Order: sequence, then structure tokens, then C-alpha cells
Amino acid sequence: MKRKIGIVGATGYTGVELLRLLVSHPAVEITCVTSREHAGSRVDAMFPNLRGYLDLTFTAPSDEALSACDLVFFATPNGIAMKSAQTLLDAGTKVIDLAADFRIKDIAVWEKWYGMQHASPHLVEEAVYGLPELNRAAIRNARLVANPGCYPTAVTLGLLPLVENNLIDVAGIIADTKSGVSGAGRKAEVHTLLAEAGDNFKAYAVAGHRHQPEIAQTLSTIAQTAISPVFVPHLLPMIRGIHATLYAMLTTEADLQQLYATRYAAEPFVDVMPAGSHPETRSVRGANVCRMAIHRPGNGQRVVVLSVIDNLVKGAAGQAVQNMNLMLDLAEGTALQQPGLLP
Amino acid sequence: MKRKIGIVGATGYTGVELLRLLVSHPAVEITCVTSREHAGSRVDAMFPNLRGYLDLTFTAPSDEALSACDLVFFATPNGIAMKSAQTLLDAGTKVIDLAADFRIKDIAVWEKWYGMQHASPHLVEEAVYGLPELNRAAIRNARLVANPGCYPTAVTLGLLPLVENNLIDVAGIIADTKSGVSGAGRKAEVHTLLAEAGDNFKAYAVAGHRHQPEIAQTLSTIAQTAISPVFVPHLLPMIRGIHATLYAMLTTEADLQQLYATRYAAEPFVDVMPAGSHPETRSVRGANVCRMAIHRPGNGQRVVVLSVIDNLVKGAAGQAVQNMNLMLDLAEGTALQQPGLLP
Amino acid sequence: MKRKIGIVGATGYTGVELLRLLVSHPAVEITCVTSREHAGSRVDAMFPNLRGYLDLTFTAPSDEALSACDLVFFATPNGIAMKSAQTLLDAGTKVIDLAADFRIKDIAVWEKWYGMQHASPHLVEEAVYGLPELNRAAIRNARLVANPGCYPTAVTLGLLPLVENNLIDVAGIIADTKSGVSGAGRKAEVHTLLAEAGDNFKAYAVAGHRHQPEIAQTLSTIAQTAISPVFVPHLLPMIRGIHATLYAMLTTEADLQQLYATRYAAEPFVDVMPAGSHPETRSVRGANVCRMAIHRPGNGQRVVVLSVIDNLVKGAAGQAVQNMNLMLDLAEGTALQQPGLLP
Amino acid sequence: MKRKIGIVGATGYTGVELLRLLVSHPAVEITCVTSREHAGSRVDAMFPNLRGYLDLTFTAPSDEALSACDLVFFATPNGIAMKSAQTLLDAGTKVIDLAADFRIKDIAVWEKWYGMQHASPHLVEEAVYGLPELNRAAIRNARLVANPGCYPTAVTLGLLPLVENNLIDVAGIIADTKSGVSGAGRKAEVHTLLAEAGDNFKAYAVAGHRHQPEIAQTLSTIAQTAISPVFVPHLLPMIRGIHATLYAMLTTEADLQQLYATRYAAEPFVDVMPAGSHPETRSVRGANVCRMAIHRPGNGQRVVVLSVIDNLVKGAAGQAVQNMNLMLDLAEGTALQQPGLLP
Repeated sequence: MKRKIGIVGATGYTGVELLRLLVSHPAVEITCVTSREHAGSRVDAMFPNLRGYLDLTFTAPSDEALSACDLVFFATPNGIAMKSAQTLLDAGTKVIDLAADFRIKDIAVWEKWYGMQHASPHLVEEAVYGLPELNRAAIRNARLVANPGCYPTAVTLGLLPLVENNLIDVAGIIADTKSGVSGAGRKAEVHTLLAEAGDNFKAYAVAGHRHQPEIAQTLSTIAQTAISPVFVPHLLPMIRGIHATLYAMLTTEADLQQLYATRYAAEPFVDVMPAGSHPETRSVRGANVCRMAIHRPGNGQRVVVLSVIDNLVKGAAGQAVQNMNLMLDLAEGTALQQPGLLP
Repeated sequence: MKRKIGIVGATGYTGVELLRLLVSHPAVEITCVTSREHAGSRVDAMFPNLRGYLDLTFTAPSDEALSACDLVFFATPNGIAMKSAQTLLDAGTKVIDLAADFRIKDIAVWEKWYGMQHASPHLVEEAVYGLPELNRAAIRNARLVANPGCYPTAVTLGLLPLVENNLIDVAGIIADTKSGVSGAGRKAEVHTLLAEAGDNFKAYAVAGHRHQPEIAQTLSTIAQTAISPVFVPHLLPMIRGIHATLYAMLTTEADLQQLYATRYAAEPFVDVMPAGSHPETRSVRGANVCRMAIHRPGNGQRVVVLSVIDNLVKGAAGQAVQNMNLMLDLAEGTALQQPGLLP
Repeated sequence: MKRKIGIVGATGYTGVELLRLLVSHPAVEITCVTSREHAGSRVDAMFPNLRGYLDLTFTAPSDEALSACDLVFFATPNGIAMKSAQTLLDAGTKVIDLAADFRIKDIAVWEKWYGMQHASPHLVEEAVYGLPELNRAAIRNARLVANPGCYPTAVTLGLLPLVENNLIDVAGIIADTKSGVSGAGRKAEVHTLLAEAGDNFKAYAVAGHRHQPEIAQTLSTIAQTAISPVFVPHLLPMIRGIHATLYAMLTTEADLQQLYATRYAAEPFVDVMPAGSHPETRSVRGANVCRMAIHRPGNGQRVVVLSVIDNLVKGAAGQAVQNMNLMLDLAEGTALQQPGLLP
Repeated sequence: MKRKIGIVGATGYTGVELLRLLVSHPAVEITCVTSREHAGSRVDAMFPNLRGYLDLTFTAPSDEALSACDLVFFATPNGIAMKSAQTLLDAGTKVIDLAADFRIKDIAVWEKWYGMQHASPHLVEEAVYGLPELNRAAIRNARLVANPGCYPTAVTLGLLPLVENNLIDVAGIIADTKSGVSGAGRKAEVHTLLAEAGDNFKAYAVAGHRHQPEIAQTLSTIAQTAISPVFVPHLLPMIRGIHATLYAMLTTEADLQQLYATRYAAEPFVDVMPAGSHPETRSVRGANVCRMAIHRPGNGQRVVVLSVIDNLVKGAAGQAVQNMNLMLDLAEGTALQQPGLLP
């Protein structure tokens, strides 16, 4: 029997991407797609790419309907899932939050960066950070998963082998990151209009960005020491894709190509390219993969890791489905085995 | 002594484009740039391309300050200029409205398409439709100019020689038009986000668009008979530029290349390309020119005119400056003699 | 047992798109991917989106290897398939040509438009024009299929119900079409550089385009009378997608919405949107569907049909796979059931 | 009397940009525009944005015609200017090379990076590196100017105040740079097609790029010590614009905002934005300015400088005109006083 799946807040980009992936999933059935504003209207009227694949209307959020699901995704703004998760968990429904409510373990840090009081601090400890390459076993057993941010996925996977093996000077890590505009969501705002963000490039939030403490937490946990990388995000004039250019100084000599290849050999959704490669964001467009290449310019001690993902797939909805598969004891790659759309 | 110029509502794209052109104008001085919302903040903080060229802050709209100008541009939404124009005209200040308030002579038609009651129907008759290629003499003597819409400029100039000379079946005109997103203005809306309008193409408003009656009015006046072309606009995944593809059936034989070349020979801002050409929107990017080419596929009776403009320049701010030059008895091309930015 | 599939000339965009679709096809096995120039190098080195999905190297074209296939796709420039098809057919291998070699029945017309002598005129008669919505039964029985051009697919499907039912004045059809640049192929040319075709829009080939006689042939065959529509293509500043805006005059009254809905009700890959809709190219990005909407502005006799496809999918590789499924007696939609990638 | 100007190789993007700027220059006359391949055809047939502004045809390169000029620009590939410069200098004609022939003082380094033997090593010493902010006096007196590369302009101006004042650890400089595709020139190549570079982002040449030794040379000269920054370029899916994100560790405390403001206060074409700003490439589109902002995330010792230019203007043709003005004793800003095109 198919598992029942609900999606709260499916009018944004992570929502429609979840739907795109899940309609091809043989073991699940989408039973409930909520939107307070659009209740009563067909989902495929808003997202016509789904015409013929999804015969559902948006419904108003209801604890009853959602509690009847085996698993519920929150594709909502920050601060929503934390108010409803406990109710669903009590009903035996598993929860994956694609927003940031359960990502940061230190409540004070979370409240500072997200500008609100946390409604369920007791659940933060229980929540598993949903990066399968780091926490696969815990995710399998989790009731509540905090799906990682898009930048943190690209940055963390790019640095993981170096940090795990204590090979670099962790005080000097720089993450120069670039994202397509879909990362900003489907909100009506001037700065992400095509006439503003198109044909243009800029850095933003250099003084501080919410994904920095998330990255810092994960790297610090791995290294067992405090790591706070420099994190500079930029906005790309395109829709999908993140490129992280990561800089670190090697303190211990190692064959990095071999190191990465070995670390990720068994990972279905991390691809280490041959030495000398330059991964392109388009190679992962629509695909649930983090593709990377490792460089040492001039064979020096400076390491440059290039790491790309589709921010809506491995950086959001795809990773969430990967987590769902683990939590529901399904084959991890179900509905995620598609090559990227190139060109 | 320099003429004093005011701009009402300079926080949109036609506003910043007026500023870009006027800061290089040797005979005018911008004395007043209004915005209710941004009063007190520097203009170049919003539009950093103007840093070093314009030392002004936005001020709240004030009849007193605007009345001290020789000429005021309204770069406002529809329905604003019609409320203030009379006061300025009474003070001896000339007015150019870049919105649609004074474009349509038939008040009932205007009220139907623009969904509001007209506040100054008595001024509509006085207002001159600011297409210099059609109304140059009247513009020179005008106190109040209705600056044409962007689509109407490209379409009307493309059809003018055919209609003036009664060469086509006016019942069968089709205007298939395509516009960059800056034509939709600098408003926060979902459908013009880069993530929505980028890498995408669609028609819109096929059932009816406000520029259709404007085009119909001008062509009908020229032809002395009612013309109501089919008008289908489309949204291009780019910022600036309109391309009109115009179809008509020739009823009288003529050398069209010669006809167009002669009609526009003395026009400083219309460029008729050699036979067989395909004008590109980028060739007019930032430039105050309508560039066109005339085709007769298979040498048949079907005429295809290709007409391009930059919707913010010849389609809005540039044409407004051209009108200002005429109204203030300055050389018509002042501040408008720049090649397009290619590539 | 899986069917063996070969692809000749898989270094272009239709080639890589065939590969993207076929690696997910459960009933076929790609055994041979040829490229004279790149023989010996891995396919996924050129197209890294295929890393992990295709473990093949390009091989030099060889009749022997290709003849061992059940079916061979030619994703080559025009003029290649016509030289090799007979050999493969003789060996019992079925052939689908994605180029134009077998599309035009009148050899003289073909030779005029394609500028070369036809090498296999005797096969042209046998070849079936691979538009399943028109020729499904014949395709099932075909050894040799001429896969339709991208523009012809969008235009023909958009006009089919009108022409089949003799509802319009066929002398006045206008097809104003717009295509993303991938339609021009993966050839190093100046005019399709990002710095040339990006942020730009233009018509091209207004004097005559090879897809016009192809469209004319299909419509004429359906109508049993000569039809030669006006066909004006334009180049869009984006990668994938065709939008055809089709104009015709209704000569017989009909409920067009109903007509189209009925005509395409059983078609798995044609989607008629509700009245008043504007199909977007992004809604079919990566998907094998032709999505359309029918308009009658002002409820007059003028019909405006809006028809969109992904030029690389329903306009090329997807339609080819659909044809392959029919020719190999597989379920028609196998490997083609994916929603478009939106945003 | 107007100065006579020649341009060798004006069929590329730096060539057409020189023409766009120079047609508005009141003190010069373009007398000679050469192209071996296009000799005899009109310049504005290739670049229709110049229609009405330039009445010239391309001519085959001729020492005689070029020697009659007061100054000649080489907008040619690398390796051309070095063969002709001496002849022109002997005739009293000044020379500005927009390619790299005279940028690197160490001939061995140049020959290694550019893969050819230098034809005029004796001229390399004489050539002045044309960065006015560094070498204004020498440029005024120069016969031969090496116009800087695009990346080196953005990077060097961004780091200049820090290096001049010995405030940073010069061993740890990182320049993460991003460029629009026009930087790759108007050459028919697959990797810069819209269908390849559009909607995509990647790093390239991480192992080594020709602009690295150029930057290293300039910074080393200023610092009087060897500096070899890490330099990682990326390709942006847009036409014009470079964004350099520059990282360094402060070793001496200083008020950086004040430092930069003071250093560039008298510079007409460097704009230091207020603290906290994020310069956008579009703010300099078409404009001869380097716009920058200085950040210290968390008020730590890490400095992040954001520096943007239009690669074709301040990064090439605009800077060349600025140098020309200096060399011909004209006002430095002539023909360069235009705000950027925004949006």
C-alpha cells in the first residue's frame, strides 16, 4: 500500500519541486496539499507543468487531514513547522521541515538569526539534521528531520572530507558561494524581478547570512572544535543552481582526489569529478546530486573545492525526498534517479 | 539659463531612465524628483548608476515645487497625472505624462480600459499625442503631451507609411508583439520575477490589452476610417526591448523599401534598414530609435514589417525627452544622440 | 530482453537529449553511440549530466555495430542519414532520422531547400512522417521514420483540428514562431553566442525557412488542397522552448474549445488548456508535450492558437522516443512520463 | 583640428565598444577601421547600433593608413600589436594595445603564458601599463600603452589601497572573480554559446589563468615584494560585467572606509560606495567606472572587498579611451561621462 504524503505550503518553489518529484514516486501517494490562500483551486492551475500528473486541489491546512498522512513535508516559510510539528508527531506522522526551524541546536543562536521566539525548543534536540552523507543512520530512525539549507548542503559536502580528516587550518576557511534566484523563493519582491536580478551579479549579506551559523554548527560538530568560516553569498542571474568555491589551507599532506573519491564512493548522490574538472551548475539542473572537483593551484597548500548543486533538488526538495525514502524504509534513490537537464 | 525640470514618481524604470538621459542634457537642470515613499533619501542610493551624476534627494510631491519648474514629467502609474496636470498648467508649467491618462480621446473608452473615472476629461482634448513623427508641429506648441505607450510606438511607426498611403487592407492587420519585462515596471509581482519570467516565453492578454485601443485610435485617425488591429503581446525573458512583427495584405502595388525610406528620411530617430534585414532589439538598447525592416515573403502581397525599439527609451523616456526638446524649443536630438549598447 | 539502440552523431543537443531520456527507459539498452571526432572518449566527459547513468565511450560509426541494433537514431546534420539508412534497413534495423532527410516527399523541393542532391530518393516514399497524432498506425508499422522538425510539430499540432475540419480560410494562415537557441544546435557560430543572442530578440529567415515547406506539406495533405502559410521564425534569448502564435480566419462557426478538447482527448502528449489560458514554454521544459490554448479575441472570426513545446523533447528527441516506442511495440509513453521542470 | 584615430581589428567586442565611445568624442575623428576579413564592407552592417553614427567601411590593415593617424588602438588578438607597433611609433603614431602584448615586463613569463615568442621585447620596457589610477603621469608621456586586462583592472583597483599601505598579509590574498561572457570575445566557440553558457555557472582555469601573472606583477611592484594571489575566475550567464570578491587578512588596524575614500577621492572613474554596500555589475553597465565596497564581516581582521566593472568599458575600451585622452592631452573624462544603463 502506498504511503500517504502531505505537503504544507506547496505554493512556493520547494513545494512545486516536491510535487514534481513525488508524482513519479511509485511508493507514495500525495493526499494533501495545503495552502490557506489558494484553498479550493487546482494545484495544476498554479503549476501547469503538473497538468496530467496531479489531480488535486489545495486545501486549507488541517491537523486532521495532515495527521492522516504517514509523512508531512513543510515547504513553508521559517516559523511555521515549529508550531505544528508536535501535533503531527503525536499522531504518529513523520515530519520533514524544509525551512530552518529545526536546523540550529542552539536556541539562542536560532532566535537571533531568525528574529523570533522558538515555539518548540524541546523538539530541536530530537530533530535530525537531514544530510544523509553525514547522518544516514539517524535519519532512518528519525521522526523529525530538519532538511539542510541549500548553501549549507553545497558547502558542507565540499568540505566534509577535509574537516573529518583534520587536514586543513579550520580558522581560514572561505566559502564564496553563488546562487540562482529561485533560492529566494516565490515571493513578490523588487530585488528578484527579472528586470533587477537579470543580467546582473552582486554579493549580498556580506555582514552576515543565516546559513553561516548552520554551516558553522555542522563543521564544528564534525571537527570537535569551533569553526566559523567566512561566508559570502552572491546572486546569480539564473533560476536554479548553486556553485560554492571553497578555499582552505592544507596543514597535512594528502592525496585529496583519492580522499574524496573514497569518502563518497558509496554515496549515491555525490559525484567527485576527475582531477582538473570544473563542475557546471547545469550538469545538476533538476538532479539530486552534489557534483564537485578538487584543485590545488600550483600544487601548493591552498585547496580549492568547487561544489555544485541544484538548490531546489539536492539543496531542498530532492534531499527531502531522499530523507523521506530513508525514514519510510524505501530504497534511498527512489524517484531521484534522473540525469540533469542539459542544455 | 537652464530650464528647470521636475519628475514625479521617479522610482520606476521610466523615471530612472529619464534621469539617466537628463543628467547629460546641457540645457536643463533637474530641480525636483518626487516620491512620497522615499522622500528624504538620496536618488542615487536607489539607482547607483547615477552616483556622481545627480546630487538630489527624493522630495514629497508638492504643487509649489513642481510649479516652479518649466516642465514636469509624470513617470507615475495611470491615474496620477490627470489629478495634478491642471494645477501645473495654470502655473505655466508644461507637462508630459508618460502614463496613459491623456492618450485616449474617447473618455468612455479610456474609462473602460483603465477601470477608473477620468479626473480631467477637459484636458484630454487639449493633450497632444507625443509621437513626433506624426505630430511634431503640434508638440512644439503643446502645453500638455501624452507620451505614447511602448507597444503603440513600435507598431504605429511600423505601419505608418502603409496606412498613410492607403496601401493595405486595414481590416486584416495583425500585430504580434514581444516585450522585455521592464515594460511591466518596477513593481513587486510574482509573474515578473526572474524565476518566473526568466528562461520562459508566453503570450498574455490575448483577450484584450490597453495598448490596442491606443493603436487603433492613431491608425484610425491617419486612415480616416476605423481600424482595429489584432494585437497579441508576449513577454520576453530579457529586460529591455520590444519587437513588433506586423502583418498586412497589400492592396495597391508599391515599392515599399522606397516608400519607407522616403517617409522617414528626415526623421532623426527612425531607421529603415536595407531590404532583407532583421533588426535586433539589442541594436537599440539604450538608444532613442525605432529601427525597422520591410519584407514581402515570396514577393507576394503579404507585407511583414519588423520594428524594434527600446521600450524604456523610444518607447518611454527617450521619446519624452524628444518631446521636451520640442516643447522647450531646444534642438530635438539633444541628449539623445547615443548609439545602442551592443553587445 | 532489452532492445539494442544505436545513436549516430550524439554530440549535439538532440543526441544528448536522446541519451537523457533513454537511460531511464526500462526496455532498451544503448549499445552504440557514435562520433567520428570523439571516438574513444567517454560520453559523460562531454555531457557530465550523464555521469553515473551511462557507461559508454563514443565509437567511430560502423555499419556492423549499428546493424546489430534493433533501432538506430540519426541525430546528425542533414544529409547523413540518407546515405546509411538503406544499409541498416537491409540488416533489419529500424531507423529514425531526427534530421530532415526523409521529411519532404517532393525530392525537388527537398533538394532546393537543403542545397544538396538526395542520396536515397527511393526511401523518401517509404518513410513515415513521425507525428504520432497524425500517423500513429503507420508509425507502428514503419521501418523508417522521419522525425518532424521542431517548428512543424508546434505549428501542425496547433492547426490540426482547424484544418482537418475545414473550418478556416487556409489561404490566410500566419505562423509567428519563436524558438530558444538550442534549436540551432551545438555548433560554434557567432550569432548564437550568449553575447550575441542573449538579452536580444530578432526575426530571422523571413524570406524563407526550411520548415515552411514541411508545414505546408503536412497541412496540404490533411486539407487535400495546397496550403502555404506565412511562416516567420524568431530567436528567443533562452535555451529551450518554442512558442507558436498561430492566426487564422474562421469560415465556419464552431466551438473551438470543444473541438480541440475532443480531437486531443486520447492523445497522451497533447494538452489543451482551459479557455483563456496562456501556455508558457517553461511548463513543458524537459517534457514531451505540446501544450496549447485557443483564443478568439473579441469573439470574432479571428482565431489565435498558442502552442508550446520543448524543441528538444516533443520537438525532437522526445518525439523520437515516442516513435521508437511505437515502432518497437512498447507502451507509447515509456520514459516520457515526466512533468516539466518549473521553475 | 580633430585627432585622427585608427582601430586595428574592430570586429570584436572591444572594437565595437571603442567605436561606440569614440563616435561621441568631440576631439577625435575615426579615420581608419581595419579588418582583413571584412575589408570593403560597412562597419555598421556588422554593428547596426552604429547606424547613423559612423559612415566608414572596414579597410585592410595598411601601415600607411595607420601611420597617418595620431593614435592607433589595437583591438586584436594577442600577438598582433607586437608586430606592428614599432612601425607606427617610428611614424610618430601613438599606440594603445588592448591585448596583452605589452603587459608583462618579464618576457619569459609572457612567452610561457601566451605560448609564443615575443616579437618586440625591446618595446615591452618602454610600454606603460595603462592603469591611470596608478600610472597617470607616465601614461601622459607615453608613446605606447599596454591597456590592462579586465580582471586585473577590477582586482588591482580593489586591492590598491591595502597593498600600497602595507596593511595586509600579502601571502594570503584570494581573488574570486566572475565575468560575463563578452570577456571571451566574439569568437565562434561552443563553450560560450547561449545554449552552453546561459543559465549556467562554473569556474574555469583554476589551474592557472593569464591574468594571474599580470595582477601579481602590478601588486608586487606596488608592494616591493613578491605577491602571487590565488586567482579563481568564473563564467557568468550574462554579457557584460565583472565582479571581483577579494579576501585578505588585515595585519595593521586601519579605517578602511576612510582609507579607500581618500585614496580614490580625486579619481574620476573609481567610486567607493558607503560602508555596507553591495555594488551591482548592472550599475556600471556601459560606464567607465570601477565601483567598490569594503567589508569586514564581524568586524574581524578579514577584509572583503567587492569590486565591479564593465569588462568592455573600464575593463577594456573605456579605459583605453581614458588613456588616449591622457596621451593626447585631452580632458581625461571626455566621451566617458555617461551613467550606466540600469535596468
